[in-house]
Amino acid sequence: MATRRGSARARTYAAAGVDRSQTSRALAALLAQVRVRHPSGEVRSVPLPGHFAGLVRVGRETLAVTTDTVGTKTILAEATGRWEEVGVDAVAINVNDLAAVGARPIGLVDVISCRRAEPSVFAQLGRGIDRGLREAGCILLGGETAIVPELLAGVDVGGTAVGYFPRGRRPVTGASIRPGDWILGLRADGLHSNGFTLARRIVRDAHADWNRPRPGARRALAVEFLTPTRIYVRASEALAGVPGVTGLAHISGGGVRNLPRLHGRVRYVLDGWPAPAGLFDWLGRTGDVSATELYQTFNMGIGFVAIVRPRAFAVALRRLRRAGYADARVVGHVARGHGVELPHLGVEYTGYA
Amino acid sequence: MATRRGSARARTYAAAGVDRSQTSRALAALLAQVRVRHPSGEVRSVPLPGHFAGLVRVGRETLAVTTDTVGTKTILAEATGRWEEVGVDAVAINVNDLAAVGARPIGLVDVISCRRAEPSVFAQLGRGIDRGLREAGCILLGGETAIVPELLAGVDVGGTAVGYFPRGRRPVTGASIRPGDWILGLRADGLHSNGFTLARRIVRDAHADWNRPRPGARRALAVEFLTPTRIYVRASEALAGVPGVTGLAHISGGGVRNLPRLHGRVRYVLDGWPAPAGLFDWLGRTGDVSATELYQTFNMGIGFVAIVRPRAFAVALRRLRRAGYADARVVGHVARGHGVELPHLGVEYTGYA
Repeated sequence: MATRRGSARARTYAAAGVDRSQTSRALAALLAQVRVRHPSGEVRSVPLPGHFAGLVRVGRETLAVTTDTVGTKTILAEATGRWEEVGVDAVAINVNDLAAVGARPIGLVDVISCRRAEPSVFAQLGRGIDRGLREAGCILLGGETAIVPELLAGVDVGGTAVGYFPRGRRPVTGASIRPGDWILGLRADGLHSNGFTLARRIVRDAHADWNRPRPGARRALAVEFLTPTRIYVRASEALAGVPGVTGLAHISGGGVRNLPRLHGRVRYVLDGWPAPAGLFDWLGRTGDVSATELYQTFNMGIGFVAIVRPRAFAVALRRLRRAGYADARVVGHVARGHGVELPHLGVEYTGYA
Repeated sequence: MATRRGSARARTYAAAGVDRSQTSRALAALLAQVRVRHPSGEVRSVPLPGHFAGLVRVGRETLAVTTDTVGTKTILAEATGRWEEVGVDAVAINVNDLAAVGARPIGLVDVISCRRAEPSVFAQLGRGIDRGLREAGCILLGGETAIVPELLAGVDVGGTAVGYFPRGRRPVTGASIRPGDWILGLRADGLHSNGFTLARRIVRDAHADWNRPRPGARRALAVEFLTPTRIYVRASEALAGVPGVTGLAHISGGGVRNLPRLHGRVRYVLDGWPAPAGLFDWLGRTGDVSATELYQTFNMGIGFVAIVRPRAFAVALRRLRRAGYADARVVGHVARGHGVELPHLGVEYTGYA
């Protein structure tokens, strides 16, 4: 469970070991101390409330920077000896946050903190990082390996991605989202890398076998959980700069409650967001988790969202399909009001995520 | 103990729990897998062998990216409840690596992984980050807090810094270093954030009291250890682009063996590098650590180095003093051959760091 700056959701995830309101208070305490501005006229910070990417203008370029870690998904990687997926994730979680502001990835630095650097583990991580970078169309800019046996009980894998805006492209911020816009969703490939603390607790409490498939699945539960985060860079490249594309969102920790971060003074009516299905349905029923908790913890099948004016809908869909996202479809619309609603499921959130 | 990419030193630090040759093999295994290139003609990687900063050209700007973690120094922060120093370090260790290529810092993203986010700890970290950013003249671009109680035994603090080259300035690579150049050294403020695994082991094995000063010191040992890493950005700003300045180096993990990374086909004769003094002397004698091990583990009193042509010496020294580094002085010269030598101490290294 990772909380990125700006994310100030105060929910009770405490039962699974993560106290979000405590984390929010801690973050606020940190940020209250940092008030420095850049002394050089050449560098200007670009405010981007509600996004996980930080934007800064340097000379003629605008850069976007994101940082995130894979979190406790590595515990499953360690248990199964499968690390390639986590390598993909280290890239995906960061470039998807760039994609959500319409920035094109330049590259990534990775950070691996561990008790001991196993060459076979690192080779798999490298294979995954390479896969992720190829899919995202960017390069490895550097990295750091910290061998800190006294600090780590497991392996912590993260990274920082830097992106830019090609000539003429402006950041997609969500500021122009308005009632009447349509919400397009792109399929997620499973859990991605969010909600693992809760998901693993559900498996443990149910005494489910990690090495066997859940009912209705073909792959072992551990392998299904490890499916890498889908990369949405080509979707962002297909849509950024297209007139009428008003918002993009990476559905990560916080689930559908990521949407009000884009623009808080509208209501997101997600009447086409999938009902709990497959792994998500199994997790909800096995763990007796309410729909309200499910949709604010997991992506529930949609990993990336584009918000568009009705007139831009056809061109956006065509561009997404041409970019390889044949699964793109309408999952809702923007209405007057505030908060998020899944009317077919009786779920509603009024506050910010 | 952190190993950054490119750092391939194969030494036996294993007794203190860090197997560097294993780490080197693991890194090589990872890097062998990553061969991707950027598909866009707008982005070009700039090879910079031997440096911790990665360089990339985007449009008209050249960017430098560094990433590093504070490592096990946080164990002392936790034991003493003092976190501000570690906040400074998170900035310093990264911007100093930018300084070593002559890049001006734009900003930092911080990453804090912990079991629980304590507001009082985060406030102190924020105060330190702010102090570091002010000193380095850059801003906070974002951050990530990972609450991962199952992964972490302590608190892991790190960051990624992004820098640029102001119009007309080129990276300082060390490629033009040649015999006859002089080596200027700038004072370190204690251990900085390297060698803590060994240093803490020495204290533990000697049953020394963290809460009392060592002989000859005034501050408690723990407080002396926690002294933040000095920031050398103004030194780099004073020297980068000055004709005759051929190399800059941040003396971090690996001690004086960082120098051959700049240029491997010359010999660094460090006849003016300080003999073990103060804390370093105490560590060496208390831990019965050889001078050879000391000078390849700790900075031994010099945290940043500038290599200059003799004709540039006077102007470099004047500029450094004007920038606030009154302590700058000659610590050696470049000769024919290879490796590093401290002739007054009978210490010599022949291989790469």
